[in-house]
Order: sequence, then C-alpha cells, then structure tokens
Amino acid sequence: MAMPDLKWSGSEKKIARRAFEAALESTLAGIMTEFKAMAAAAATPSEMWAVEDYLRRRRREVDELFDYRYSQLILVFARLIREGRLDEARLAGLSKDKLEMIRHVLSPMR
Amino acid sequence: MAMPDLKWSGSEKKIARRAFEAALESTLAGIMTEFKAMAAAAATPSEMWAVEDYLRRRRREVDELFDYRYSQLILVFARLIREGRLDEARLAGLSKDKLEMIRHVLSPMR
Repeated sequence: MAMPDLKWSGSEKKIARRAFEAALESTLAGIMTEFKAMAAAAATPSEMWAVEDYLRRRRREVDELFDYRYSQLILVFARLIREGRLDEARLAGLSKDKLEMIRHVLSPMR
Repeated sequence: MAMPDLKWSGSEKKIARRAFEAALESTLAGIMTEFKAMAAAAATPSEMWAVEDYLRRRRREVDELFDYRYSQLILVFARLIREGRLDEARLAGLSKDKLEMIRHVLSPMR
C-alpha cells in the first residue's frame, strides 16, 4: 500500500519514536518471558531445538514489523495497534491526517 | 578422504551404534547445560538472540558431525575421539583394520 509523502514535524517524530520504542520494548519483553519459560522447561534435545525455532520466528517477525521508516510508519502503527502492541493514545499529538490514515487502515470496512 | 568399502559385521554394527549414540547423547547433554545457563542468564534482547545463534551453530555442528553412514563412520569416530566426545575403548570389538584406520586418521603424522 502506497502512502502519500507525509511530512513529520520534529514533535511528531518524537511522539512516533517514543510510541515505536515502547511497542518494541513490550514486544521484546513478551518474547523474553516466553523464551525463559520454554528454556527452563526444556528437558529434551527436541524441546531445546524448539526454543531455537521459536526465537528464529520471533526475531524475523520483529525485524519485519518494527520498520521505522517514515514511509512505513502509518502502516506499522496500524499493525501494532491491531495486534495490541500499541495503545492508540500514545500517538496523540500526531497530525489529524496521520491519525485518520491509521484509523482508515484499521477500519474493518477495508 | 575416501575409505575402502569396509564390511561391518552384526556385532560391529551394534558396537558402532552404541558408541555413536553415547557420543551423541553426551554432546547433546553438554549443549543442553550450556543452553540452560545462557538462557537463565539472558537479561537483554541481544543476550536472548545470542542463545538463538548458539543453538543454531551447535545444531548445525551436530547434524554435520553425527553422520551414521558406514562409509563415514571411521572418520566420524576419529573426529569424535579427537574432540574428546568418544572414548576409544568404547570401540573395542571392531575389527583390527577398522581400529587401525581410526588410529591412522588420528595420528599426528598425517
């Protein structure tokens, strides 16, 4: 999906960066918790290799999802909100057009 | 390195299989111990991803090293002995030519 070439003001960049970092941190914390539990419970080689598989999948997802390019940020924020990784309230202060675009991406009618 | 086409008797196959399985089990147990310690100590995302890297490297090594084809077994046993993963005494009962080949591979003059 192509996004128009949006302008991000300095204060918007700060808001976006903070929201992005908070979502990334909480996603990584969730992975860490699951990883620790799997690792502690692993009793066989195949359970150990399952931890490797788990980490590899999660790492790839994180790398794909957390793409901080301004050209991608509307879509990234919409996806983070949809997946429950970001509270939309954290984006307060972004311009009205950006918030509307995010809501549009999120709208069930699409 | 090409190995001559050796014949393995039934009792040799049993000895080889048991030695191979014992070395594999102890290798996996060593990886498990290291993995558990790394996982328990991991406190940051980068330490968590380091566990993934560790497991991927070890899994590849295990897959490459533990190759139970009779055409490879002399070399596999020599390498397991050299790496301290197999006690040569476990191979007692293999034919003299096989033990000599293994020692030949192991000899520092090669």
